[in-house]
Amino acid sequence: MEVKVVWHEGLRFVGLPPSGHAVLVDGAKEVGGEDTGPRPTELLLIALGGCTGMDVVSILQKMRTPPRKFWIEIHAERNDQHPKAIKRVHLAYFAEGVPEENLRRAAELSQERYCSVAHSLAAELTFAVQALP
Amino acid sequence: MEVKVVWHEGLRFVGLPPSGHAVLVDGAKEVGGEDTGPRPTELLLIALGGCTGMDVVSILQKMRTPPRKFWIEIHAERNDQHPKAIKRVHLAYFAEGVPEENLRRAAELSQERYCSVAHSLAAELTFAVQALP
Repeated sequence: MEVKVVWHEGLRFVGLPPSGHAVLVDGAKEVGGEDTGPRPTELLLIALGGCTGMDVVSILQKMRTPPRKFWIEIHAERNDQHPKAIKRVHLAYFAEGVPEENLRRAAELSQERYCSVAHSLAAELTFAVQALP
Repeated sequence: MEVKVVWHEGLRFVGLPPSGHAVLVDGAKEVGGEDTGPRPTELLLIALGGCTGMDVVSILQKMRTPPRKFWIEIHAERNDQHPKAIKRVHLAYFAEGVPEENLRRAAELSQERYCSVAHSLAAELTFAVQALP
């Protein structure tokens, strides 16, 4: 895959991926950015959540228990010192209208076998699931 | 850091990071998505390019050789089989109006010491630089 990331001004960049959907990134004002877009580490975690989320929703549909609602809360811990790498990530999966064992099995399958972004990270990943009525 | 990733419909998710800049992700039509936003793996590479790009532009400014133009071309290789993790990434840094040795040193500093996203990845990273007039 080829992606081009082009500097505009300050710390603002535009990412140009093969799908054609350009994505802005920018730094916080404290570090000289203009805060016109998300931080790179935020994008990384959204990539992770989107990846495993697509897996889980697809698997739940194949199990014939599609969720009414579904979301993931992601908590990441970073190094204090440079490089401020993400060392640990905890993903909490929430679904409404799904048996909890199906949600757990779908999350396991994603984490162990399918999620390309999770398997691209060096961080230690843990997860929990919660099925809601 | 806390990020929430919320399912909308199909394979479309919205990422809600602390900066407040929501980011859409969606799957390709071939896999059941609607292609209304970038893929998760595209976001991952944009996160990487934005991260190291911010480092390099900041370092070049500290060297008093700010670029006129600057961009990064990122080439990523993935596993053929599940999980289709990103195994190798090559970053080609291009800058106009910068001595090539400064560009090389800035890219080295980012890769070796500063770039939080690069150090969060399991993939093998390589890079090259090209200074243009």
